[in-house]
Amino acid sequence: MKSIKVGLLGIGTVGAGTFNVLKRNQEEIARRAGRAIEIVMVADLNEERARQLVGEQCEVVSDGNLVVNHPDVDIVIELIGGYGVAKDLVLKAIANGKHVVTANKALLATHGDEIFKAAQAKGVMVAYEAAVAGGIPIIKALREGLTANRIEWIAGIINGTTNFILSEMRDKGSDFDTVLKEAQRLGYAEADPTFDIEGVDAAHKATLMSAIAFGIPVQFEKAHIEGITKLEAVDIRYAEQLGYRIKLLGIAKRTEQGIELRVHPTLIPSKRLIANVEGAMNAVVVQGDAVGPTLYYGKGAGSEPTASAVIADLVDIARLADAQPEHRVPHLAFQPHSMSDLPILPIAEVTTSYYLRLHVADKLGVLANVTSILAESTISVDAMMQKEPALGETQTDIIILTHQTQEKNVEAAIKKIEALPTVLGKVTKLRLEHLS
Amino acid sequence: MKSIKVGLLGIGTVGAGTFNVLKRNQEEIARRAGRAIEIVMVADLNEERARQLVGEQCEVVSDGNLVVNHPDVDIVIELIGGYGVAKDLVLKAIANGKHVVTANKALLATHGDEIFKAAQAKGVMVAYEAAVAGGIPIIKALREGLTANRIEWIAGIINGTTNFILSEMRDKGSDFDTVLKEAQRLGYAEADPTFDIEGVDAAHKATLMSAIAFGIPVQFEKAHIEGITKLEAVDIRYAEQLGYRIKLLGIAKRTEQGIELRVHPTLIPSKRLIANVEGAMNAVVVQGDAVGPTLYYGKGAGSEPTASAVIADLVDIARLADAQPEHRVPHLAFQPHSMSDLPILPIAEVTTSYYLRLHVADKLGVLANVTSILAESTISVDAMMQKEPALGETQTDIIILTHQTQEKNVEAAIKKIEALPTVLGKVTKLRLEHLS
Repeated sequence: MKSIKVGLLGIGTVGAGTFNVLKRNQEEIARRAGRAIEIVMVADLNEERARQLVGEQCEVVSDGNLVVNHPDVDIVIELIGGYGVAKDLVLKAIANGKHVVTANKALLATHGDEIFKAAQAKGVMVAYEAAVAGGIPIIKALREGLTANRIEWIAGIINGTTNFILSEMRDKGSDFDTVLKEAQRLGYAEADPTFDIEGVDAAHKATLMSAIAFGIPVQFEKAHIEGITKLEAVDIRYAEQLGYRIKLLGIAKRTEQGIELRVHPTLIPSKRLIANVEGAMNAVVVQGDAVGPTLYYGKGAGSEPTASAVIADLVDIARLADAQPEHRVPHLAFQPHSMSDLPILPIAEVTTSYYLRLHVADKLGVLANVTSILAESTISVDAMMQKEPALGETQTDIIILTHQTQEKNVEAAIKKIEALPTVLGKVTKLRLEHLS
Repeated sequence: MKSIKVGLLGIGTVGAGTFNVLKRNQEEIARRAGRAIEIVMVADLNEERARQLVGEQCEVVSDGNLVVNHPDVDIVIELIGGYGVAKDLVLKAIANGKHVVTANKALLATHGDEIFKAAQAKGVMVAYEAAVAGGIPIIKALREGLTANRIEWIAGIINGTTNFILSEMRDKGSDFDTVLKEAQRLGYAEADPTFDIEGVDAAHKATLMSAIAFGIPVQFEKAHIEGITKLEAVDIRYAEQLGYRIKLLGIAKRTEQGIELRVHPTLIPSKRLIANVEGAMNAVVVQGDAVGPTLYYGKGAGSEPTASAVIADLVDIARLADAQPEHRVPHLAFQPHSMSDLPILPIAEVTTSYYLRLHVADKLGVLANVTSILAESTISVDAMMQKEPALGETQTDIIILTHQTQEKNVEAAIKKIEALPTVLGKVTKLRLEHLS
């Protein structure tokens, strides 16, 4: 059978991994796909380096337009990243009737609707397994494996850099800045780690998962995003004492009022499997109404794990290329004419549980004042811990875990608590999910 | 678009779940599949009960032949179980050009090659996501999500009954018989639990996974199978002290000599995620050369979790029905003309690590005798633990963890060790996998 011919845009870490894995496992992959898959053309600004990586096997150019316009290319892999050239070339490839595979979560989370619409009109596939959680086939699980289910929520550790940092902070009791430097030294964090540590990368991925789980458009701009830069070692320690771990979770949840889409540090019961995902590993829990909870775990980044997802998409396209377009897996899991218009809720309307840390003067009546404010706000307390003041100290910490309540309710209560003369400074608020 | 019409053979627990989930989520499923999926006909020996379950919505018959011969039926779901009627009806459905969805691991692990060959010749699909690990989309992950990879090994907790029993034995320190009775009372074990506790059910599932991971025929008859009936509480306790948990694993591993296919109680390091899978839950770890380890976790049995997998197969078939047959996902992941003839290795040629428990007379020189036998057999020791004899006792236990060696090598050493006059009774041997 005719081989599938692939053009590659950008041969950096993931591109090189894709080229190498395709070559190393070409026989095994062809035995699965029923035809050979070959990269016939590579575009990279650094032509010389690209040539060194691919040898004489395929054409190397510096202009991606030559790839997306080439008549022999069936599928274009976009591994350039960002929103500029990448978007332009993806749209051109689609316009030329080529299928697209991309790992570019930033592009899809912000311009996905435009791209998928163009692909739909042209009858081509845009596959993006590599855009979420690297080598874990989570897009496939959501779009295909769990089609029987009304998906209720998704919660994922979908950024390896921040999970590595949080694991180290917990293991060593170190603070954020120290561990970040260590992570950069070891190559787990980039020189400019902003997108990772501020939660933006996780929010891109959570946005994509929310779309395919609930059949809504991608709405990155409505995601609530908090990173881990303000997280203090003391809260990791207190959480541990109360039986919880703190993870940066990407959460997408369906409620009757709308969709919650949020990324923030989250307390999770230590006994949950996902609480035990350490280092740079990723994991996603999906709650479906029929299947219950399922969890998917693996490497969320890196050259060959990401290449694994890119190539799985190539094989899928090789298989589905001759199915009637309306029978292929829809880009966003649901048929484009039957998307839901459930709104994304503002964070004030999100309902969850909370961890509150108050720094207080160790005086009679503090606790009574605080608990009566909570009671007035109809916030019920799940657990409370008051630390003994250190020797010679007159200040101490009170930790409160609340039951579920609305964010705006907790914010109002915190304002009142902070106004108490015995409460010193700001209240630290973290969100808590039982994931059950 | 025309709806897909389904005939259901057997409406017991899973059949009822399938009917109910399809009905409850019909709108959401149709939004994904692009067409409605409807059960139009149900066959069950207990017609009255079937009628009560499905109401007036679809035809109920007692003879499955009426379903597999019905011209309106596009897909037949086989949920009868066993090898007799089920096999006959599946083959008839295929002969009539109908696609088949089945949860019947026993049937596929023993007669899969015949069934898949018939399906291939007729150009129909036989889907079986529900046959392994219930609602976890592990078949999809192996056949589609990890197509880039040379799969190195798979290790899974793929029988909920035995995992529940092992979790309880560990938690409560109880012995097997006590916990089995408890499991039967709670509905986690059947009245005749033989297939579960003797490892047969897990071996059916491991056989299917070995076929799709390595591109080999199903060869259940060559699987090495040990259940948990002989496992003693004392070994669970000693394993725990050494940092291990004991799980009944289904293992399929590729080596240069051949394929290891085995089910047996296995020590796993406690810190591995899969070691922390408790109760009736299932989990499978897959090691691919590109992606590294990935893990899939969820409910491995039950009405709606299994229905989730059955319905995902229905949606897949609805999508792929009009793809060219040779482009659909091959039944056993690899194209039928390119299967591998790697042999399944006999257990004597399997290579792994071992846990040995020796009951010995507490006399000088015992340990020296044992270790010199191991050294002569070129079995190197990874860890050793000698318990103090209880007060007034003159006998005690020695626990040895070995490095990797061949089974026949360890068996020969055990024979020599058992011949020592200071070693009392039989040596207990368990296998140990680091899963790294």
